[in-house]
Amino acid sequence: MIRSVTTKFIMNTLDFAAVQAAAKRIAGHVRRTPVQTSQTLDRLAGREVYCKCENFQTTGSFKYRGATNAVGSLDPALAARGVVTHSSGNHGQALARAAQALGVPCVVVMPAAASRIKKDAILGYGASVVESGPSLTDREEVVKQVLAERGGAFVPPFDHPDVIAGQGTAMLELLEEVPDLDAVVAPIGGGGLISGFCIAAKGFNPKIRIFGAEPTGANAAALSKQAGERVQISTPTSIADGLLANRIGELTWPVIRDSVEQIFQVSEEQIAAAMRLIWERMKLVIEPSAGVGIAVILSEEFRALPGIKKVGVVLCGGNVALDKLPWKQN
Amino acid sequence: MIRSVTTKFIMNTLDFAAVQAAAKRIAGHVRRTPVQTSQTLDRLAGREVYCKCENFQTTGSFKYRGATNAVGSLDPALAARGVVTHSSGNHGQALARAAQALGVPCVVVMPAAASRIKKDAILGYGASVVESGPSLTDREEVVKQVLAERGGAFVPPFDHPDVIAGQGTAMLELLEEVPDLDAVVAPIGGGGLISGFCIAAKGFNPKIRIFGAEPTGANAAALSKQAGERVQISTPTSIADGLLANRIGELTWPVIRDSVEQIFQVSEEQIAAAMRLIWERMKLVIEPSAGVGIAVILSEEFRALPGIKKVGVVLCGGNVALDKLPWKQN
Repeated sequence: MIRSVTTKFIMNTLDFAAVQAAAKRIAGHVRRTPVQTSQTLDRLAGREVYCKCENFQTTGSFKYRGATNAVGSLDPALAARGVVTHSSGNHGQALARAAQALGVPCVVVMPAAASRIKKDAILGYGASVVESGPSLTDREEVVKQVLAERGGAFVPPFDHPDVIAGQGTAMLELLEEVPDLDAVVAPIGGGGLISGFCIAAKGFNPKIRIFGAEPTGANAAALSKQAGERVQISTPTSIADGLLANRIGELTWPVIRDSVEQIFQVSEEQIAAAMRLIWERMKLVIEPSAGVGIAVILSEEFRALPGIKKVGVVLCGGNVALDKLPWKQN
Repeated sequence: MIRSVTTKFIMNTLDFAAVQAAAKRIAGHVRRTPVQTSQTLDRLAGREVYCKCENFQTTGSFKYRGATNAVGSLDPALAARGVVTHSSGNHGQALARAAQALGVPCVVVMPAAASRIKKDAILGYGASVVESGPSLTDREEVVKQVLAERGGAFVPPFDHPDVIAGQGTAMLELLEEVPDLDAVVAPIGGGGLISGFCIAAKGFNPKIRIFGAEPTGANAAALSKQAGERVQISTPTSIADGLLANRIGELTWPVIRDSVEQIFQVSEEQIAAAMRLIWERMKLVIEPSAGVGIAVILSEEFRALPGIKKVGVVLCGGNVALDKLPWKQN
């Protein structure tokens, strides 16, 4: 059990009960996504593979679970002031939509240079957009200003107990459907998804094995595991744009350190090929970040692991620019 | 009820009982595909839309239903000699796979110039490939030769009672899940899918309304409805390559004539936009043929139809060349 840092608005514990409570809290708001399989994928992986389809989740990614749990956990007075974040990607959209669904105001801080499409998506979910400079420091500064002016709660993309517990609910559902999984593979950006998975999976079955998946160009978690402490990388680079974190979180790190058995790294070519395979054979639109987990499962190194008959993997999202695909058109 | 033409291997009737019998025959062999929905699609369509996801069907299209029912209906002596067809598209793959699953030999006649990928897919399902000249006459000639040499049953892509009854099982499943549909939209190539749908839907609820969907460049069914008799067109052309039939079938025509209320035509631009919308918002890889039904539902003409609160549509397949998409890459 990990006690969260105390902030001005949360003091929750982060354990299996928190994931179970999150599942109750978000039921009816969040989609129970299907688990899909493919004979071709099984053959290529050398074992049975169960894909949890969070690409079908509201807003197109698992982030909607954590966002809904975080917004739903706020006390009413704080909720009335609203929520704030500075992600313009999947978390920003998820938070905007979750806040809209629960009738809570939402502000998303975005670099002035962010694309029109991203701004429109956020605005379309009824949130306000406040512009900032391009760097993380610029964005954090504007978040502080917004909070100082109007109050409310900052909901970060991963390093937050309610967010982590929310992400863990996807794992609970997967295990309810396939209780005898031997192992699970999840991609790592800031670590919110995999730490939620660890807490949920180990609470369900302490023997289940958890593996992380990272692009070689965005391998902060793998380096941290090797070093035994959180490592910061300078410029994470990958087509898996959902996983571009400089380092994993303060809260997610100890969970990953203690509960993730091994973190595998895959190349851009492996990611694109895995993504394309899932599109072609399973007819699922997944984003490159979701291809990362599949690429690990298809890698020789992972295939060689003994004792794993059934492996689960999360197809974490399906938000991809259809006019910028990582393969050539003829 | 339509009595089928008598052939040397079939003398089945084509009615609701035939569809129910097909459902029993193919259970356990064919996937019960999910029905998926999207708030965005509902909003754009102006009503509730229920998508039957046959893109998830084995071999990536609904054709696997008809093929499995046709192969499963053969008497053992004929089955031992095998099945033959000359489609290298979705039906050819479906028949090869269905024959493999049921332990029946299969020959697919293909033009010598057909792509390596198509040949490999057929061979990968354990069928034999026999080459022919490029025209339909060439292919039919080779099918006759194969049947003369080795016997067996010709299973055409649509104009066959067992094939039609098999396709109707998708409609049965859709209605079991959403019994109060007011209308259904299905794309038309040779008419196998929609005539199976008509028989299944009208058997379930005589008041349900059935609408056809065709590309303007491949509109043999719409022209036939207008003329009151089967019309042949010279060169059907569309990105919806699953719907390129010169004319609809002898068996499917009377069903379409009597049970389809209206056939809507959509442009190539509408098809590509509808396909892209489903990829983007529902995260489903569908082929252009499946976009045709969606494009109709999104058209002003269809939106203006009164009295339809809930409409079902079949996403008929997901076999699309991912390196030849009908939109530009940036």
